[in-house]
Amino acid sequence: MSSRHAVVLLSGGLDSATVLAIARAEGFVCHALSFDYGQRHRTELAAAARVAQALGAKERRTMKIDFAGIGGSALTDESIPVPEVLQQGIPITYVPARNTVFLAMALGWAEVLHSVDIHIGVNAVDYSGYPDCRPTFIDAFVRLANVATKAGVEGAQFRVHTPLIALSKSDIIRRGLDLGVDFAMTVSCYQANGRGEACGHCDSCRLRRDGFEAAGVTDPTRYVTS
Amino acid sequence: MSSRHAVVLLSGGLDSATVLAIARAEGFVCHALSFDYGQRHRTELAAAARVAQALGAKERRTMKIDFAGIGGSALTDESIPVPEVLQQGIPITYVPARNTVFLAMALGWAEVLHSVDIHIGVNAVDYSGYPDCRPTFIDAFVRLANVATKAGVEGAQFRVHTPLIALSKSDIIRRGLDLGVDFAMTVSCYQANGRGEACGHCDSCRLRRDGFEAAGVTDPTRYVTS
Repeated sequence: MSSRHAVVLLSGGLDSATVLAIARAEGFVCHALSFDYGQRHRTELAAAARVAQALGAKERRTMKIDFAGIGGSALTDESIPVPEVLQQGIPITYVPARNTVFLAMALGWAEVLHSVDIHIGVNAVDYSGYPDCRPTFIDAFVRLANVATKAGVEGAQFRVHTPLIALSKSDIIRRGLDLGVDFAMTVSCYQANGRGEACGHCDSCRLRRDGFEAAGVTDPTRYVTS
Repeated sequence: MSSRHAVVLLSGGLDSATVLAIARAEGFVCHALSFDYGQRHRTELAAAARVAQALGAKERRTMKIDFAGIGGSALTDESIPVPEVLQQGIPITYVPARNTVFLAMALGWAEVLHSVDIHIGVNAVDYSGYPDCRPTFIDAFVRLANVATKAGVEGAQFRVHTPLIALSKSDIIRRGLDLGVDFAMTVSCYQANGRGEACGHCDSCRLRRDGFEAAGVTDPTRYVTS
């Protein structure tokens, strides 16, 4: 086992839980980083805490970021409804520059930890058209990281690990199950309620439900019953 | 006069006040962005409010960012003293990934405003060795911005304006004075007290004092008298 340290972005959803399991399986000592950014689905933060503990993260921090102050997304602006029909192009649930900010914060923490490894669960297959989930974005961020930091100037080469980037949702589910992830503790819904129950209708719920079906696995998600 | 909108990073110091004056003189409608990141010298935020009003910013927002939570810098960690002797290399006042995070937040706000212009007062002459004040960093950020955002994917070309990057401190002071900036309302000191009085000893105070001297201008800074 290596004792390399890594920062793992952990939202509390299905994807990032699988990423944490993969990073642990690769031998990384994992420092999980979650964000409280005014998201509607803040119940995912409770899920992140459960997941971090269950999958053996060394520690977990939640950082507050004021995305709601700038608005512009259905995920952070209560006046914009979460759509229930799959949209063409980049959906209104896109949060401007979200992954740029998340990776920047992860980079700062990694540098303090003397780590060059950051893990993020971006996915370019089911990514719903988000520009900051594509390989070209990740590559540009790595180039930035190497010139932005004291560590980079001193020769460190940062790595942003994206183990899910080319996987389908069903592939991700199979991978997570192989590594012992209990998906019942994860929350993916964009508008989950305070008990962590999913709406069953938003883009994120659809992708997740279809993923379990395609993987031939019982969906453990708790849906709102009304 | 153009009615282009711009996000201007405004710390409350001498440099960013000059940048705001330059952006206004270029005809930009300016949206000033300040950060409360747990810095010791939080009195600069009051200075930023005064400067934004005096120089005609359309609005100003202060975003909280939890840098103190990750530590690693004399500017955010009370256990690390601010040095009073100029250091070789990258100083302990470097905050890991600070400008990366600041520009990422500015990018998000710019996108919401349908703006592609961001102004930042980085300086590669008196920059005290910070890696994220160099042209190579700015260039890498622009490349990232264009692939990270919905606007970029749709063809927008972001611009990060760095009008001070090649100026000496005395040049910056002369430029600001030409544009009517009242430097008495700015605070540059890394450990200014609650009344906005400067220590006179830190790197930032030295650079500022030497700048006024080299410019042949009376230094309007209020120093702590003890």
